[in-house]
Amino acid sequence: MSEVRRDIVTDTWVIVETDHLEVPRDHLKALRKPPACPFCEGNEAMTPPEVAAIRPDGEPNGPGWKVRVIPDRRPVLRIEGELQRVGVGIHDMVTGIGANEVVIEAPGHVTHFAELAPEQVELVLGTWRNRLVDLYRDQRFRYVLVFKDHGRLAGGSTIEHVHSQIIALPATPRRVKDQLAGARSYYEYKERCVFCDILQDELRTGERVVLETEHFVAFAPYASRLPFELRLKPRRHCFSFAEAKDEELADLAEVLRRTLLGLARVLDEPPYNVVLHTAPNLLPQEGYWQSVRNDYHWFLEVIPRVRRTDGFEWGSGFFINPVAPERAARLLKEVL
Amino acid sequence: MSEVRRDIVTDTWVIVETDHLEVPRDHLKALRKPPACPFCEGNEAMTPPEVAAIRPDGEPNGPGWKVRVIPDRRPVLRIEGELQRVGVGIHDMVTGIGANEVVIEAPGHVTHFAELAPEQVELVLGTWRNRLVDLYRDQRFRYVLVFKDHGRLAGGSTIEHVHSQIIALPATPRRVKDQLAGARSYYEYKERCVFCDILQDELRTGERVVLETEHFVAFAPYASRLPFELRLKPRRHCFSFAEAKDEELADLAEVLRRTLLGLARVLDEPPYNVVLHTAPNLLPQEGYWQSVRNDYHWFLEVIPRVRRTDGFEWGSGFFINPVAPERAARLLKEVL
Repeated sequence: MSEVRRDIVTDTWVIVETDHLEVPRDHLKALRKPPACPFCEGNEAMTPPEVAAIRPDGEPNGPGWKVRVIPDRRPVLRIEGELQRVGVGIHDMVTGIGANEVVIEAPGHVTHFAELAPEQVELVLGTWRNRLVDLYRDQRFRYVLVFKDHGRLAGGSTIEHVHSQIIALPATPRRVKDQLAGARSYYEYKERCVFCDILQDELRTGERVVLETEHFVAFAPYASRLPFELRLKPRRHCFSFAEAKDEELADLAEVLRRTLLGLARVLDEPPYNVVLHTAPNLLPQEGYWQSVRNDYHWFLEVIPRVRRTDGFEWGSGFFINPVAPERAARLLKEVL
Repeated sequence: MSEVRRDIVTDTWVIVETDHLEVPRDHLKALRKPPACPFCEGNEAMTPPEVAAIRPDGEPNGPGWKVRVIPDRRPVLRIEGELQRVGVGIHDMVTGIGANEVVIEAPGHVTHFAELAPEQVELVLGTWRNRLVDLYRDQRFRYVLVFKDHGRLAGGSTIEHVHSQIIALPATPRRVKDQLAGARSYYEYKERCVFCDILQDELRTGERVVLETEHFVAFAPYASRLPFELRLKPRRHCFSFAEAKDEELADLAEVLRRTLLGLARVLDEPPYNVVLHTAPNLLPQEGYWQSVRNDYHWFLEVIPRVRRTDGFEWGSGFFINPVAPERAARLLKEVL
């Protein structure tokens, strides 16, 4: 079981596992691989029953799939139950309602996402979109976060078989709220999407652009928090990944693959995170969020984790980036 | 040289080093210790000349000191120059003006802060206070962050000799702004300090309190982002560490030492960060910040780093904490 607790001072939400008894000791632990890979085709019995799959052949929970979605074996949020907002003394809490899913991105034992064929990456992106659409039908879920942890330093699991994660949350995360508030006030002032304007500015100067395609621009943001942080942004203004078009996903698959290959060469196989930034669920509070359609612009964030963060960054939310994004973009462009 | 860049969407500031040529590869690097410790008494010539020191004997930059403050050998911000706010295309930038100092916390080669004598810890805290007072005289500095990184997973350096860091910043960090905004709106509503109210609530329930002394309460916050995160908060309402009293520092020295010893026992010598949270520099904008004296309440944050953060946390600012703070407090109380 878990509770979703709010920091009343900073409006930061935390999923607190209230009955978990293990104390993490990541600083002592060595990597221990499981004896057999539960994500490989043929080992479906080792995982919980699938939630969804792209399956040209075979029966559910058997071989024959191309992409498979399963619930997390140890979910931090429960799918059943009512969403309740509770006051606890001076504090605020939401019951731990949500969903934890794992997207197994290939039937074969591939450990590097960038090694998948472009068509396979496209199937993965399509699966993300389908899950987002499906989960947003549930009004209890306020935000769905899709992300990928590659490598231990990036929080990756001991299962190395390529996979990504989907977490449906009962509250909107702080960073999303900050983005929405910033985008809102920009729109109010200029009547333009701040993300569209940033994209235009990046294309104009060109010095932080890594890759340009018909539908996408990959660039290192002006205020990159970490070295080689990248944004893959669709040229077309659109608030939600759920409304991305097929041709955009095909294009994004290629951009993402090439970007990750470039990072692997420049940074010597770095651990990294990929995070989808999309609008919160507009259903539960349609009126309030209406403006989000104008203000927000979905994108994919790629964050190599080649620098440990320290107390400065944790304490302040102020970052030190030793590699200027202009330089990161230049180095990446050289290998691409 | 560096630039301090602002993310226009989320108001997050980043110090970007624009002429640094090394690309970090922390994920590949093993720990390489320097051949001799530059922080030990007698090796003063190995460091830049001291900025300040507690020195009962000897000449500056020679032996005879108890605590020594030096500029960082590779500062990310420059102390000289004018603070300029610049528009860069659509973006905002501040010149990289600030200060980077290192506090060497003992003359002998001690590597664990908790092993220092209580009187020595008191001298360190007194040094932090003096540096804060001194740096806030400079109106270019908007915030001074005092922190400590212990162990490589917490961002600690290869120099193991106990030391902390002080960074004076030309902009107020996002997390501080969030705290100030949250505290402000609470005060406007209740005419009480939110941190005082949280403290009362913690003392009332008691379930997250780890340690209580005459002047301090150490507790695990209700919405702890990481396992065993602790706050050491003065009972007396006071907005700034610069105004902490001597008897409070003596008390805090003991609380901090005992807390760190407790964490070392429960978590097997964890890496950790200690971060001082105090009000921004009120000098440059006295009127605007006047309310900060009522709203804000300084504290010390202790963050063990026993869990790697993943893409979920980086992408969203939403956290998963596998150890409920009530349980962390109970485990710590058992060993204290």
